[in-house]
Amino acid sequence: MLTVGVIGATGYAGAELMRLLCRHPHVGKILAGSHSYVGQPYASVYPNFHKIHEFPCQDAAIASMARQCDVVFLSLPHGIASQQVNESVLAECVIIDLGADFRLSDPLVYESWYKTVHGSPHLLKQAVYGLSELQRDKIAASRLIANPGCYTTCSILTLHPLLAESLIDSETIIIDAKSGVSGAGRSEKLGSLFCECDESIKPYGVTNHRHTPEIEEQLTLSNGKTGKPVVLTFTPHLIPMNRGILVTAYAKLNEGVRGKDIADAYARHYGNEQFIRILSQGTFPETRWVKGSNYCDIGFAVDSRTDRVVACGAIDNLVKGAAGQAVQNMNIVCALDEQAGIDAIPAFPL
Amino acid sequence: MLTVGVIGATGYAGAELMRLLCRHPHVGKILAGSHSYVGQPYASVYPNFHKIHEFPCQDAAIASMARQCDVVFLSLPHGIASQQVNESVLAECVIIDLGADFRLSDPLVYESWYKTVHGSPHLLKQAVYGLSELQRDKIAASRLIANPGCYTTCSILTLHPLLAESLIDSETIIIDAKSGVSGAGRSEKLGSLFCECDESIKPYGVTNHRHTPEIEEQLTLSNGKTGKPVVLTFTPHLIPMNRGILVTAYAKLNEGVRGKDIADAYARHYGNEQFIRILSQGTFPETRWVKGSNYCDIGFAVDSRTDRVVACGAIDNLVKGAAGQAVQNMNIVCALDEQAGIDAIPAFPL
Amino acid sequence: MLTVGVIGATGYAGAELMRLLCRHPHVGKILAGSHSYVGQPYASVYPNFHKIHEFPCQDAAIASMARQCDVVFLSLPHGIASQQVNESVLAECVIIDLGADFRLSDPLVYESWYKTVHGSPHLLKQAVYGLSELQRDKIAASRLIANPGCYTTCSILTLHPLLAESLIDSETIIIDAKSGVSGAGRSEKLGSLFCECDESIKPYGVTNHRHTPEIEEQLTLSNGKTGKPVVLTFTPHLIPMNRGILVTAYAKLNEGVRGKDIADAYARHYGNEQFIRILSQGTFPETRWVKGSNYCDIGFAVDSRTDRVVACGAIDNLVKGAAGQAVQNMNIVCALDEQAGIDAIPAFPL
Amino acid sequence: MLTVGVIGATGYAGAELMRLLCRHPHVGKILAGSHSYVGQPYASVYPNFHKIHEFPCQDAAIASMARQCDVVFLSLPHGIASQQVNESVLAECVIIDLGADFRLSDPLVYESWYKTVHGSPHLLKQAVYGLSELQRDKIAASRLIANPGCYTTCSILTLHPLLAESLIDSETIIIDAKSGVSGAGRSEKLGSLFCECDESIKPYGVTNHRHTPEIEEQLTLSNGKTGKPVVLTFTPHLIPMNRGILVTAYAKLNEGVRGKDIADAYARHYGNEQFIRILSQGTFPETRWVKGSNYCDIGFAVDSRTDRVVACGAIDNLVKGAAGQAVQNMNIVCALDEQAGIDAIPAFPL
Repeated sequence: MLTVGVIGATGYAGAELMRLLCRHPHVGKILAGSHSYVGQPYASVYPNFHKIHEFPCQDAAIASMARQCDVVFLSLPHGIASQQVNESVLAECVIIDLGADFRLSDPLVYESWYKTVHGSPHLLKQAVYGLSELQRDKIAASRLIANPGCYTTCSILTLHPLLAESLIDSETIIIDAKSGVSGAGRSEKLGSLFCECDESIKPYGVTNHRHTPEIEEQLTLSNGKTGKPVVLTFTPHLIPMNRGILVTAYAKLNEGVRGKDIADAYARHYGNEQFIRILSQGTFPETRWVKGSNYCDIGFAVDSRTDRVVACGAIDNLVKGAAGQAVQNMNIVCALDEQAGIDAIPAFPL
Repeated sequence: MLTVGVIGATGYAGAELMRLLCRHPHVGKILAGSHSYVGQPYASVYPNFHKIHEFPCQDAAIASMARQCDVVFLSLPHGIASQQVNESVLAECVIIDLGADFRLSDPLVYESWYKTVHGSPHLLKQAVYGLSELQRDKIAASRLIANPGCYTTCSILTLHPLLAESLIDSETIIIDAKSGVSGAGRSEKLGSLFCECDESIKPYGVTNHRHTPEIEEQLTLSNGKTGKPVVLTFTPHLIPMNRGILVTAYAKLNEGVRGKDIADAYARHYGNEQFIRILSQGTFPETRWVKGSNYCDIGFAVDSRTDRVVACGAIDNLVKGAAGQAVQNMNIVCALDEQAGIDAIPAFPL
Repeated sequence: MLTVGVIGATGYAGAELMRLLCRHPHVGKILAGSHSYVGQPYASVYPNFHKIHEFPCQDAAIASMARQCDVVFLSLPHGIASQQVNESVLAECVIIDLGADFRLSDPLVYESWYKTVHGSPHLLKQAVYGLSELQRDKIAASRLIANPGCYTTCSILTLHPLLAESLIDSETIIIDAKSGVSGAGRSEKLGSLFCECDESIKPYGVTNHRHTPEIEEQLTLSNGKTGKPVVLTFTPHLIPMNRGILVTAYAKLNEGVRGKDIADAYARHYGNEQFIRILSQGTFPETRWVKGSNYCDIGFAVDSRTDRVVACGAIDNLVKGAAGQAVQNMNIVCALDEQAGIDAIPAFPL
Repeated sequence: MLTVGVIGATGYAGAELMRLLCRHPHVGKILAGSHSYVGQPYASVYPNFHKIHEFPCQDAAIASMARQCDVVFLSLPHGIASQQVNESVLAECVIIDLGADFRLSDPLVYESWYKTVHGSPHLLKQAVYGLSELQRDKIAASRLIANPGCYTTCSILTLHPLLAESLIDSETIIIDAKSGVSGAGRSEKLGSLFCECDESIKPYGVTNHRHTPEIEEQLTLSNGKTGKPVVLTFTPHLIPMNRGILVTAYAKLNEGVRGKDIADAYARHYGNEQFIRILSQGTFPETRWVKGSNYCDIGFAVDSRTDRVVACGAIDNLVKGAAGQAVQNMNIVCALDEQAGIDAIPAFPL
């Protein structure tokens, strides 16, 4: 049985991790680290854990966590993880970082989008981008896993096969994404108040959302055959619901590409994937069908009037987009059944 | 491994049952019976089951189901189960009925509240009221279990210890209940449309909701010491959310009763119950902390200005209020671990 | 044309006041006072006012406002108004205070519920409780109007005729109230975040909510014939919607009282009231039918099994429960058509 | 004072029309026509009209309505209006049709998208497309006004200036639109149930939504300088909220076009428009800021990394997207103040 730690256990992603880990068949002891609630019972911060995880929140110091744990998850604001993770920490435990610090390979790109200095650029080479389905082998061999962002996971999974098989023109990609409010975290911001979000939709981070370079870097890798860097337009929107991300992606089809080619590409890449479900052509995902689960549903249609593909992906942002994929990565790196602890069926209506 | 059937698998409660049964460690084969969708893949009706339960919906005939199954769950409109269940069905399998037909011991009471003739009054004697925590032994010995209603489960669990220990005046009980919309089922009614429910609250069934006699019959049993039949006021309200029931119950305290007496009564009755969580005095349940789980959270305060107790209970109406408790009853009657398949931690935010 | 000021114009109630006043046929100039946003365009705080009210927020000093205005509305946290209002202010303008400071006639009661010293107890005698329908004449003659709380308005209007005509036992009153989240105001509190409120319901302030003494004082006045002080149980709940309050009130009927007596009482008291709509017996209000308007809808049923009445009232908490009633009171005190500027029809679906 | 009729007064758009007309300063008598509720009080179908519009629903026969009214609004499923409107009707009254039958100039295009025969193709020439801001003069001179669709209004207003001034490449337009559920109308469909919409988002009508040809026809007119027909990709999504449409439009900028050019184009076209509010560059509309009003808010940013513009428009689908614009068109055709009866300020939080 594994001993695991969660640093930042009292954010929404951290709490979802706690929930999954508490019922994971191969996890024994769980340490909950929290900057803000040290000493308070975890269940007083999240009463859903009442009678289930009654231990107090611990100091969130990474060195001590690393010594006690096989795997430590970091769920922190950007800029902190890269200051705390170092070789001696990585010698003690596997780090799965749900934040942004180790996702981009180039520290200059990181610094230009995040407006902060990267604390440990020398570690970026050993960091592996933790999109489980696309990097499974590298993840298995790594000690430092950069868990992808929520928008990113959904966007990359939706577009990867189309680029990998050169079905679309990589210069024409537009990603219009929609997210529930839990993506904004548990901080007391005006814009996250119920009355500011309920019954409204808004675009935000237009042309400058920080998940953009992450999507571009990974899709450039997918786009390997052409060698062209992918540069795209990414527009996230806030939707009045707790959970869920829907990505609607648009691109021009390369000459002669038909719907069947797209369906085949998805089947080839994801046909054996447990957590990716490809819908039949013309059927589209809805976030309700993946809510509470680690699934990513993908559907598409060809717009023959404009020679475009419209491809949509849907995930639960706190599961496949954060905590669930983090557990999936732990399973991979620990050589466990990849579905262990994250095989929940989406519930409906939820 | 058990073979189980669900008749009415395409309603909301039926779908929740399917979800729980598909991940139940002691369930092998699952038959999904549906009147409306015979022959269609179950996952086409509920795409959350895509890649998980791809079998077609079967004809919902009880006799054939009974022959193939160890346990058959009925999730049907009232009036149907009592026509279909009979001795030969009960000889073949255990019936767990999520409907109302076998909940009231007196067929005349049933007929006066449900405005229909009871189809098998002679079976009422062998039916056991399936409120797991209060009828565990009888459930274990039964072949016909009447799973309680959602409002009922929450109301009875909240008030039972107070009556059982004669702490409140049974003539003063008022239950003000609030439910999410999934309680209304998956039928295409004007009042269930999104735009008719969203951003509004309404009382309904005032003074005549059909869960009233069920609550009264069971609380009269709780009130055994005094022998007085419990007659109470019950007012349900519809709330703009998918799931969850909150019951706010009011009663006059009997002379000399204090907060500590109430806390002690709850502790004595429920201290060892896995699925009931008593909160400290003055702390109140919220439906979000039980959502997606089989838990019932209960809290209370004493209103010393008026000598009343205000006691609140919260459940997920589709889990502890329907499918979860049905599985709990299956576990009891099949002598399995009572928590098997229903030990999910509430997720938040969900 | 009137010149009016709103101190606290950037809270939710203040913004609703601004909206009503900007379209009021007898209001000319409007000054928006704000502690937090002085100098910023009002429309930058509330973009719904873009192109409509582009003036900057002013300093919120009451003395200067009073000099410039015919009527000044205060929408402030409790404890502030009573420190700022004084005789010279009242000599300059009419004050309509949407806060709690002048609602309770006894400063000791105020101090025991609000845990603060009252800043101007000598003014309480001239303050009039601004429940427009019940205090119309006094309001017309006053310079200091204490606008009622939202729960209070709805509770009192629902119960007043029943007490005034001695139809119910005043010792048995229970008020179970439900409110949308806008009642909590525009402050950045954890409990007001979207993800903490959405898809959940919670009781709060159980046995100790500050609207309790206000309801009791006014209903004691209604209960004049018996002379008995009304002491009751009041339980508010938070509902996942922006606006709306529903009050469900319970009481024992006095001997011999029938449904018709109640209907008659409502008709006698409210039959000529523009903003109160009595529904036929057995029909109940829903907040959606009053949303965006100054109406209060009231319905009831007699529970003959328990000799209780269940009476429900519904209002829009920001209109009849705050800004709308404040304008109604301005209309009364300024001898304008009472409906001027607040005659909006409820919109649906909204 | 005008006498007006609404045929289809019991749908959501019809009810919104009724609400606006009941408070319109130049409207006297209002006839509510309804196929389903003939003879029933209008307020029994929509209790928000209790005490306000108590007249019964009338037979919806257009000939009789036309004789009695100055203006008749049609709010009907497609295919009906084109069978009912004829020369003698138009001789009696002005028709403002909120449906699709007279929006497309080419009956073959209509028939290919709507899969039905057009009932009166000879009337299409005299029908005017009722996008008030763009067709004001033609509307003023017409007897048959085809009120635009909700998605259409928002899409066209957002993109018109960019095409009219040749700032974007008309072959690269993608419109990703999001709508609240009221757009689906008040019919009892499974997909419109609360539990099927709440807490989820879904794309629908992908590549084949019927508002597509309407947007294309009008934007082709905007695109007059180039003479090129506009063909675009349009993807609507359903969002869990009652009201509101947000359109996010993407297009490649023509060579050398900068943000200032776009801002100038918007200012030139809409600077004097009462109901269109252009936000400063980089600021984006949100549906909450227009809710309950006839405003259309528009914002944009230039994505310099990809040489695209991202332009967003937001409207209330039932007001500017349906009933409000219909009243605006009535005001125009009747030579009234264009804002009469529709000058409501958006309310927030609502």
